[in-house]
Amino acid sequence: MNAARPDFPFPVVVWRDGAVALIDQRRLPGELVTLVCPDVPALAEAIRTLAVRGAPAIGVAAAWGLALSWDLSRRAGRDAAAALAALERDRALLAATRPTAVNLFWALDRQAALAGRLVAAGAGVPEVGAALAAAAADLRERDVATGRALGAAGAALLPDPATVLTHCNAGGLATGGYGTALGIVYAAVDAGKRVRVYADETRPLLQGARLTAWELQARGVPVTLICEGAAGSLLRRGEVDAVITGADRIARNGDVANKIGTYPLAVLARTHGVPFYVAAPLSTFDPGAADGGAIVVEERDPREITEYQGVAVAPAGVGAWNPAFDVTPGDLVTAIVTERGVHRPPYGASLAGIGPEAPDSLP
Amino acid sequence: MNAARPDFPFPVVVWRDGAVALIDQRRLPGELVTLVCPDVPALAEAIRTLAVRGAPAIGVAAAWGLALSWDLSRRAGRDAAAALAALERDRALLAATRPTAVNLFWALDRQAALAGRLVAAGAGVPEVGAALAAAAADLRERDVATGRALGAAGAALLPDPATVLTHCNAGGLATGGYGTALGIVYAAVDAGKRVRVYADETRPLLQGARLTAWELQARGVPVTLICEGAAGSLLRRGEVDAVITGADRIARNGDVANKIGTYPLAVLARTHGVPFYVAAPLSTFDPGAADGGAIVVEERDPREITEYQGVAVAPAGVGAWNPAFDVTPGDLVTAIVTERGVHRPPYGASLAGIGPEAPDSLP
Repeated sequence: MNAARPDFPFPVVVWRDGAVALIDQRRLPGELVTLVCPDVPALAEAIRTLAVRGAPAIGVAAAWGLALSWDLSRRAGRDAAAALAALERDRALLAATRPTAVNLFWALDRQAALAGRLVAAGAGVPEVGAALAAAAADLRERDVATGRALGAAGAALLPDPATVLTHCNAGGLATGGYGTALGIVYAAVDAGKRVRVYADETRPLLQGARLTAWELQARGVPVTLICEGAAGSLLRRGEVDAVITGADRIARNGDVANKIGTYPLAVLARTHGVPFYVAAPLSTFDPGAADGGAIVVEERDPREITEYQGVAVAPAGVGAWNPAFDVTPGDLVTAIVTERGVHRPPYGASLAGIGPEAPDSLP
Repeated sequence: MNAARPDFPFPVVVWRDGAVALIDQRRLPGELVTLVCPDVPALAEAIRTLAVRGAPAIGVAAAWGLALSWDLSRRAGRDAAAALAALERDRALLAATRPTAVNLFWALDRQAALAGRLVAAGAGVPEVGAALAAAAADLRERDVATGRALGAAGAALLPDPATVLTHCNAGGLATGGYGTALGIVYAAVDAGKRVRVYADETRPLLQGARLTAWELQARGVPVTLICEGAAGSLLRRGEVDAVITGADRIARNGDVANKIGTYPLAVLARTHGVPFYVAAPLSTFDPGAADGGAIVVEERDPREITEYQGVAVAPAGVGAWNPAFDVTPGDLVTAIVTERGVHRPPYGASLAGIGPEAPDSLP
């Protein structure tokens, strides 16, 4: 069950022959296959079903989605007004896929604003299409650069040797291709530090087992899986130097929405005096959220828990509560690492002025 | 995928036609089937592979195992000395199956002491066999009575209505047939209280999803599954009145070994001011363990994590750390509920004199 080793940074979401092509993460680690989305509904379905997931990667996919929307209008011979109308419909379709990752909305707003501005300035349909494609490509390249910058800042926080515990997948597969939490690991390894990783398998969809283990193995970083229930014992034994996770949305006070199971890890890290770091690009910050109470937590299909690959593991008729995320209070977060460096509590002050670029600040 | 509804208390381990018959818990919830163990190696394998599991149920199975050993000697025409030698070999075989549940060793010691005492007193082979079978049957009956007594004591701790969060399976299937943690739920329901249960699915072997959900459903108690990672959010939302788990071994200071993932629950319950109760019969106490440091924690095959029913979920070559249990410090345990009532910290005092009957105190 070894998949081929892909390029690094990983080609998580790319443009290929007039379509959005992405690594189908539902099929890892068994197979490394590319899913081609020839239209926006196909891409929306890919996001909804987690073929592509991870807040930064969803942002890149959404940016390419609107570039694809425009390109389809161009090929259909639509004028700019009709293309803008189609873009708005596709934006709504993509926005409805997943509610928590703020990068999704940020990327959609950014691309829509770019198209609107260019059309208002009299740009032609091909010109706008080229700009949207360039912006999506640029978003991915900047995300990789962000991962490297964030990684370098975070790597300095790790001792040598270091044992890191992580949750879900905040690696290359969750981003433009480099990673946030795992970006710190990669940067530390590249800086010569000896790093080993414990990866929470991360129920219900096992992103830790399927994705984090896969990409760490592909990069040659020693990795050991644990069930989430074992993290407490591991921390209690003093075997972990740092817990590092990604984030799907960060509020102004430092409250962090991330994969369900993150909050218990933060509580346990605090209990055992182990630093709990959140690694996230600025695009993950939501200036509109004063605190975690403002963050919508997606609840997913109970069958993700009651079935495994279509086979029931629980009795028929038993329900499940399946929130995809939880919110960790900022006061449990030792530091938030971004491409601008290491931010520490109180986050109201250290994060002041931090946030994604406004959509209309872009070219 | 609905199994038939069995009798309650559940016939977890019974004697049938010269063999030990048990509900094969590996096949729940899909099928309710009986596994017949015609000899002690078969029973040892059943314990090792978790066809029967749960500390009290393992104790009952072990007691029947030595009754089976003796009965096979009787059928083979062995004399008492040869039967005793076979009993010692079978005792070692059963003792090597699982290291953590203290009830296993307690039941083996108890039966071996009984056989030794009767033989020394000049009892014949058939007489000893009848005594061992009676003792095993009595152990099961007393375990059910223990569950009822413990359940009644614990039920008084619950409000009405009550929402309980539990972990793994400490129900009828884990015991002689009534339950410890779930015994409290059943007793509360029988006393007219409205109780609903959130069940941790409990990785890696999903005893919560497969067994706890099944037996609560069979008893008509409302149950909702969650992944372990969601317990923190549930507690933080204030939706849980009490966390109740079983125990596999309890030290003199109240430190509790139980299914991996119990310790994080105890930390989270404390964080949110929710009582954390441990329900356990006296046979689960280990007077030889001053504290949790003296408890051996079984580490099981990493493939329980890296595979699901034989299919890889992690990349080939990735390892896993798979402790079956963790140890919760007694100071995180609000109360320990036994058949003698509710014991509170400091446990050194409240548990003084509490423990299993000594093997030689029995008939």
